[in-house]
Amino acid sequence: MPTYKAPARDTRFIINEVLKLDTYGNLPGFENATADMADTVVEEAGKFIAEVVAPLNLSGDQEGCTRHADGSVTTPKGFKEAYVAYRESGWGTLTQPEAFGGQGMPHVLGFVIEEFLCSANQAFAMYPGLTNGAVAAILTKGSPEQQSMYLPKMISGEWTGTMNLTEPHCGTDLGLIRTRAVPQADGSYAITGTKIFISAGEHDLTSNIIHLVLAKTPDAPDSTKGISLFIVPKFLLDDQGNPGTRNPVSCGAIENKMGIHANATCVLNYDEAQGWLVGEENKGLAAMFIMMNAARLGVGVQGLSQAEVAYQNAVLYAQERRQGRALTGAAEPNEKADMLFVHPDVRRMLMDAKAFTEGFRAFALWGALQVDLSHKAATEEERALADEMISLLTPVIKGYGTDKGFETAVNMQQVWGGHGYIAENGMEQFVRDARIAQIYEGANGVQAMDLVGRKLGMNGGKAVQAFFATVDKDCAEAKADPQLADLAGRVEKANGELKAATMWFVQNGMTNPNNAGAGAHHYMHIMGIVTLGLMWLRMGKVAAAALAAGSGDKSFYEAKLVTARYFGERFTPDAGALRRKIEAGSGSIMELPVEAFATA
Amino acid sequence: MPTYKAPARDTRFIINEVLKLDTYGNLPGFENATADMADTVVEEAGKFIAEVVAPLNLSGDQEGCTRHADGSVTTPKGFKEAYVAYRESGWGTLTQPEAFGGQGMPHVLGFVIEEFLCSANQAFAMYPGLTNGAVAAILTKGSPEQQSMYLPKMISGEWTGTMNLTEPHCGTDLGLIRTRAVPQADGSYAITGTKIFISAGEHDLTSNIIHLVLAKTPDAPDSTKGISLFIVPKFLLDDQGNPGTRNPVSCGAIENKMGIHANATCVLNYDEAQGWLVGEENKGLAAMFIMMNAARLGVGVQGLSQAEVAYQNAVLYAQERRQGRALTGAAEPNEKADMLFVHPDVRRMLMDAKAFTEGFRAFALWGALQVDLSHKAATEEERALADEMISLLTPVIKGYGTDKGFETAVNMQQVWGGHGYIAENGMEQFVRDARIAQIYEGANGVQAMDLVGRKLGMNGGKAVQAFFATVDKDCAEAKADPQLADLAGRVEKANGELKAATMWFVQNGMTNPNNAGAGAHHYMHIMGIVTLGLMWLRMGKVAAAALAAGSGDKSFYEAKLVTARYFGERFTPDAGALRRKIEAGSGSIMELPVEAFATA
Repeated sequence: MPTYKAPARDTRFIINEVLKLDTYGNLPGFENATADMADTVVEEAGKFIAEVVAPLNLSGDQEGCTRHADGSVTTPKGFKEAYVAYRESGWGTLTQPEAFGGQGMPHVLGFVIEEFLCSANQAFAMYPGLTNGAVAAILTKGSPEQQSMYLPKMISGEWTGTMNLTEPHCGTDLGLIRTRAVPQADGSYAITGTKIFISAGEHDLTSNIIHLVLAKTPDAPDSTKGISLFIVPKFLLDDQGNPGTRNPVSCGAIENKMGIHANATCVLNYDEAQGWLVGEENKGLAAMFIMMNAARLGVGVQGLSQAEVAYQNAVLYAQERRQGRALTGAAEPNEKADMLFVHPDVRRMLMDAKAFTEGFRAFALWGALQVDLSHKAATEEERALADEMISLLTPVIKGYGTDKGFETAVNMQQVWGGHGYIAENGMEQFVRDARIAQIYEGANGVQAMDLVGRKLGMNGGKAVQAFFATVDKDCAEAKADPQLADLAGRVEKANGELKAATMWFVQNGMTNPNNAGAGAHHYMHIMGIVTLGLMWLRMGKVAAAALAAGSGDKSFYEAKLVTARYFGERFTPDAGALRRKIEAGSGSIMELPVEAFATA
Repeated sequence: MPTYKAPARDTRFIINEVLKLDTYGNLPGFENATADMADTVVEEAGKFIAEVVAPLNLSGDQEGCTRHADGSVTTPKGFKEAYVAYRESGWGTLTQPEAFGGQGMPHVLGFVIEEFLCSANQAFAMYPGLTNGAVAAILTKGSPEQQSMYLPKMISGEWTGTMNLTEPHCGTDLGLIRTRAVPQADGSYAITGTKIFISAGEHDLTSNIIHLVLAKTPDAPDSTKGISLFIVPKFLLDDQGNPGTRNPVSCGAIENKMGIHANATCVLNYDEAQGWLVGEENKGLAAMFIMMNAARLGVGVQGLSQAEVAYQNAVLYAQERRQGRALTGAAEPNEKADMLFVHPDVRRMLMDAKAFTEGFRAFALWGALQVDLSHKAATEEERALADEMISLLTPVIKGYGTDKGFETAVNMQQVWGGHGYIAENGMEQFVRDARIAQIYEGANGVQAMDLVGRKLGMNGGKAVQAFFATVDKDCAEAKADPQLADLAGRVEKANGELKAATMWFVQNGMTNPNNAGAGAHHYMHIMGIVTLGLMWLRMGKVAAAALAAGSGDKSFYEAKLVTARYFGERFTPDAGALRRKIEAGSGSIMELPVEAFATA
């Protein structure tokens, strides 16, 4: 059976040494986010999640969720108890506002818990994860009454939440939705329609489920400008605010999926279910994007999570399994064979995973800190900069993070050879679970278009220019350090490829937007490489300083410098190839008629 | 439900127009391989496979195989009937020797059928596929008596065969096997041990199963030099050569796997089972490699197969599904949305799949022709050259073909968005089934080391030099044609990267073999790119000539030229990046102690 331990040391390194969370103590909400507090969160939440949640991952996958004839859904054995334990642990309320029962800590610490939870059990993590998305929408767009009715119990985990966007005929293009919301005399709406792919849509973990549903009012424009957002509780609340009458929203089926079997992905049928408008009519898409943006960062972290847990199990296997001999001669002549670790190609895959997971963890936590700073930084200018950075990089966190996360899970399965293909060893589950993150919350092609079509041009390109400048500044500084000069030169070069690709879009994407579309995915990947390079420069700098100061944790910091070198050598060369692909434009991509794609 | 049609037009193009099979009519075995004959094979075998075998793919995956308490195994519903129909169709005997009931046709036509069969149903295809491997070993190393006892019924498909290499503690490193073969007074051997991952190891399709088993005789050296190969039939043959007494080899379990559910992957327990030595004692590995080399080419084709069927279904979905609008303005304003085909990023994935599948089909069939020519070409020199080419490129066909095949299946699943993650749509099965091909018959890292550690140096590098020269010659010729000049320049450049990487290995791999190991996987991929580039040049040349001659099939040839251009623009840039990764060497890969990989 696969195992999981929270990557505590590395997380503490990023939070306390690289991001230096405690230097923000003067900002509201950061007062209690001391290094000690961060250490406690990392250690204790990590321990709890590894002990209580991780052991249910494989069994949950094998058992899956069960829908009964009455439409009720049972989660796998142990999930209910683990959910109660998670709720009682309080980790889920850490970053939620104190006004509604949360602990008001910075989001960056919430991201730590999200990573751990998804590594331990992604299907489980989605139950509280979706709730967080729903909470974010009600927090921002809900009325004070709605907030006080729903938020305390959603934040405490007594109830969960869902996001209802997709319908059978529409996913990305929400302008096509058909679910109707008809206003009633009492100010509520009667919601009718079918939603599909609703994660955590029905289950037995909580006494109520608060659905957030996109629907169209009778006179709404027939486009994304005609979408409104509604709260539709599974059980209508009684006068005391407790679950009362059952609302006619029911689970028509649960999907048979490639992975995340332990999360109930439901078809939800709304049959004149009672709902309440959230925010303004026809402004539902904006509200939904609040959920989506938070969710996209969370999904990016899922890429990291599956890569991390797969990596941990590949590392263990590479030590345990003996096969063949080192190319340089038997490493352990007294054994019948050497451990897999002696083989360069096995190590290549492990180093690749190490460079990605550690680099991306820094990226994701840095991103989460920008979310905090966009609300809490001392000056308007700092808040705006943080907001621009995270807006720009959200699609990269989601798209690059999940593409590389999946690739890493696949490579870690490869380390296991034939045994990686066998279900009971758990490696293939990581691959199947990682796969969904490239698809949901906006498929990665949609992320790429968000980046290139929307984010690059924000405020006349201010965000991306600020990004370039940040990278160049770090590179220039790092070049002065012989231990980082090689990496700095490589990251600077990759940043140059990114600038050139940006310029190419400016010159060729306006006249023919297909040129932007055809290169968007590649562009997202270059930006992922450059951002991870920036993170490796920063981590390398801290590591070099710690070593120079004679740190007692020498091997940890030395490993950081070696991994930084690996990153430079093996990740950055792709930037140039990707730029050349972008510069090929959309010609050969768009030229053929549809009929030319038939092969028979 | 997913669909499949055999890619008849493209296959005929490669066989008849690019490889010009009928120009080999003077060689033994090629006499009947006329263009008409090839057309018939492609059309009729394709039709049969699409109609009879493909419809069982999804249902077979969902049902899987069942092991009963007595160790017997039932294949999914419909498999037995389809197997009988396949056997009776005669397609399985096409390339087998006439002396044992085959039709003696060139292997290149057998590869066509293998591709179709694996696209239609990989799990099904493995039952006859493993038989072919066993047949190859008996044909080359078996005694005349063994050949006449087993081959006719294995070739007719009345019996199937298996390959028994892996044991719980050893896969790649066969020197570690523990299965024992004790000589008996009657000249047979008593075989005892446990074999795992035995594809088609037990089933209900045929009246007998002929296991080929690696085992060690009592005094064998404790290394790969002490392995012998044995025939162990499930039922011992009676005096008439029919299945009689049950031999004590039994299925202890069938594995629960990520994919290929409809193929019974068995744990086989040999308990003093009666077996007969094939070839010489302690020379089993060489015999096994005969099976393996054929199997590796076949597994490379599996990469193509899954990519092809996934591509076909993605093309259909991209036409059917309407979502969003073309970036250049609504393509079909009267529809609520445009088809997915208008989106450049969707087309990028489809063009990538088209460039890979068509390019790799040419590569695989060209490779199969080299197998034929290595036996049948008119002169010793031609036979030697063909043998060198296919030896050199077998690991590329297996490793690059299955890596890209998997990647393509994943991308085609991505085209389907959320619906691609749902089991009943079949896209996720293609991904799960494609995944095994990167692992079995020598994991792709092993292929890469075979290429770099063994094949490059064969005969003082003669094969790889001949490969370079062939590519350069084709590039030089193609540069004269304005329609191909751009591609030719790009392929020439990629070939230059490959040469530079080869030189780097020569200079750095001798002193430190880890430098070769650390770059082997990248090298295999550059060689894959260059070989596909060579194929696209050749296909482009034929297409340009056909267009110049005023062919009536204009759109087919035009599509070839556009796809060739796409290949040049989007595949070749990676060659340079891969070379730079190789040149980074093994330093940062080998430097860290094992302890540094722990993350907790």
